[in-house]
Amino acid sequence: MITQEIVKSLARQTPSKIVMLVLDGVGGLPKPETGKTELETAHTPNFDKLASRGVCGLSEPVGLGITPGSAPGHTALFGYDPIAVNIGRGVLEAIGIDFPIEPDDVLVRGNFCTVDKNGIITDRRAGRIVSDKSAALCPMLEMKIDDVQILTAPVKEHRFVIDFRGPGLRDNVSETDPQQEGLKPLEAKALSAGAVKTANIVNQFVERARKILGAKHPANMVLLRGFSEKPNLPKMEDIYKLKPAAIATYPMYRGLARLVGMDILSTGTAFADEIQTLKEHYNDYDFFFIHVKKTDAAGEDGDFDRKVKAIEEIDSVLPELMNLNPDVIIVTGDHSTPAMLKGHSWHPVPTILCSAYCRPDKVAEFSESACLQGGLGIFPATQIMPLAMANALKLSKYGA
Amino acid sequence: MITQEIVKSLARQTPSKIVMLVLDGVGGLPKPETGKTELETAHTPNFDKLASRGVCGLSEPVGLGITPGSAPGHTALFGYDPIAVNIGRGVLEAIGIDFPIEPDDVLVRGNFCTVDKNGIITDRRAGRIVSDKSAALCPMLEMKIDDVQILTAPVKEHRFVIDFRGPGLRDNVSETDPQQEGLKPLEAKALSAGAVKTANIVNQFVERARKILGAKHPANMVLLRGFSEKPNLPKMEDIYKLKPAAIATYPMYRGLARLVGMDILSTGTAFADEIQTLKEHYNDYDFFFIHVKKTDAAGEDGDFDRKVKAIEEIDSVLPELMNLNPDVIIVTGDHSTPAMLKGHSWHPVPTILCSAYCRPDKVAEFSESACLQGGLGIFPATQIMPLAMANALKLSKYGA
Repeated sequence: MITQEIVKSLARQTPSKIVMLVLDGVGGLPKPETGKTELETAHTPNFDKLASRGVCGLSEPVGLGITPGSAPGHTALFGYDPIAVNIGRGVLEAIGIDFPIEPDDVLVRGNFCTVDKNGIITDRRAGRIVSDKSAALCPMLEMKIDDVQILTAPVKEHRFVIDFRGPGLRDNVSETDPQQEGLKPLEAKALSAGAVKTANIVNQFVERARKILGAKHPANMVLLRGFSEKPNLPKMEDIYKLKPAAIATYPMYRGLARLVGMDILSTGTAFADEIQTLKEHYNDYDFFFIHVKKTDAAGEDGDFDRKVKAIEEIDSVLPELMNLNPDVIIVTGDHSTPAMLKGHSWHPVPTILCSAYCRPDKVAEFSESACLQGGLGIFPATQIMPLAMANALKLSKYGA
Repeated sequence: MITQEIVKSLARQTPSKIVMLVLDGVGGLPKPETGKTELETAHTPNFDKLASRGVCGLSEPVGLGITPGSAPGHTALFGYDPIAVNIGRGVLEAIGIDFPIEPDDVLVRGNFCTVDKNGIITDRRAGRIVSDKSAALCPMLEMKIDDVQILTAPVKEHRFVIDFRGPGLRDNVSETDPQQEGLKPLEAKALSAGAVKTANIVNQFVERARKILGAKHPANMVLLRGFSEKPNLPKMEDIYKLKPAAIATYPMYRGLARLVGMDILSTGTAFADEIQTLKEHYNDYDFFFIHVKKTDAAGEDGDFDRKVKAIEEIDSVLPELMNLNPDVIIVTGDHSTPAMLKGHSWHPVPTILCSAYCRPDKVAEFSESACLQGGLGIFPATQIMPLAMANALKLSKYGA
């Protein structure tokens, strides 16, 4: 397997430009009535033209049968081993709200919950209290314990983020959420010698939170899970000798891009806005990650027709991207989200790679079944970056 | 690569059911006169229907060019790394006769052989003495040496199993069989410090056997090879949170299933008997391994037409299995056994996976050439279990 180290050793800077268009959750499953997937149902003349000019395939984000979360799905696309890179829930929640993470932080996802007078959990979500209420409670939980600053930020409803910021903190701490009602919150335990300080601070925090929230029924207690440190990932710029930028309408994807060192370009909410942003900054970077959320959102909602429509809308704007004439364009997804499953799935993802130097196959349609016949075959998503770099003539020869 | 540890961490219990039908040695090679393999020659309307409903591919049991024995072929199908898991010849011979192995045993395959008055081997198989004679000699070799109990069991003709049962025994001992005639049997040597006791016991056993068998020409000596301990494999139940059962007409396959913790269901000798057994126990388990030997046996005999007929017979009974409507059905083999080669081969194995959530391809026929066009591509057999689990909705999402 080609590792990132090998790619790094071969990478060279050139003026050529790569655009990676990620249609979140684009892969699907056939509607029983028609036997066609969302992508096969959508009318996509521009994607089809790109597919016939390019080389196609199905990318495997993590492995056969494995349904990826957004984090492993994207790290694979950026060329990082999604098994080796572990982005914890706390970090993901934080980047999902553009929370500014610092290197020494330990982040954790908090839930407001309800406990009875004996401390037994009666509702793990505090009746799903409205976001405003949660936002009002969060600042009350900010405090300093010893040399550790504790920051909070509301996410949505009962969910919030807690940031433990201070020297010598480690994320190897057990969760306080017992994952079921009728039990008391668990004590945080250090899972390695280095995490003893963190566990102590966490338990002190939880005790103070219990007192602070005592009268705030139903949100009279907190549950913590997914302790995580900021992963120390090598920057894309250092690996690939690229100047990378991200265009994404959702904070989580901006956050993932930030973790690998991309510049984040502010943009609007529609795909046309994202392409406008691309145009404006086209001369400033040589790698662009463009993330489109609509396809995944429709799939998650189980709305087959809305997913079809989202794909068609993107297709209609595609010519504006093509007019920029990038040296390499990749169209893919971070995973499949079949409307039928109302969630992420394990199915491989239709992918197009188009450049002046790709070896075109006979695929003339952007779809799951057509891409199966493509020149890239079924291949690991981690290899998209090496392929893109090669097609941009940014990789030197390997070996003498 | 997706490891068993990752799959284990994602596995969850659900009521859905998986049936894995293993047609031993099903893959073949074309008959020169027709250009068609055994599977392509067979009339298989039911397998073809299943192939068109499901997703197909070719599974690679161990690796390109590698011809698997039955043990690695099956461990791969059960989701264990066939390179990391080592099932020695002694253990395989023992499970092949339903010999009850205990955790501390060291097992070895014995051959009765003929030596001349100088102790030189003149026939490594003692004239292939009949099984009855071998069975009469075996009990004479049972003994106790120090704290080690030595048990024996006849296999077939000159072959038998020796079980060294006692504390502190290790299988890291060199073989006594020089693998050619005209030499003396070799002394067993400890290949690691921990195996010194075992080697001593083995050499004492061989000397006593020489005396006991002295007058039993042609079976007047023994040769030992394949010292092996019981592999300590994690149970399928612990990895996959499944309740697994095996239905197999041959002891070796029941033994392999037992090593990974399957319950063994007693059954008859025909495929129809096996399906009857499946029906009777269908509510008691959520994973069934059904092993069919006939395909391999015909291939080993070089009998193309009998292999075709075996496949057709299985096909004719298939609807009874389909009527149970399992959530996931897999049809595959542990390796290929082309009649042309009269033995196992390295060719990848035609495979069907069918579930409500598979992404069907255009394959409408169960054959080597059709499966090559399938949506699973050519893939490692170790990934069949993760795929089956995913399709049974028994795997959680990976990563945040």
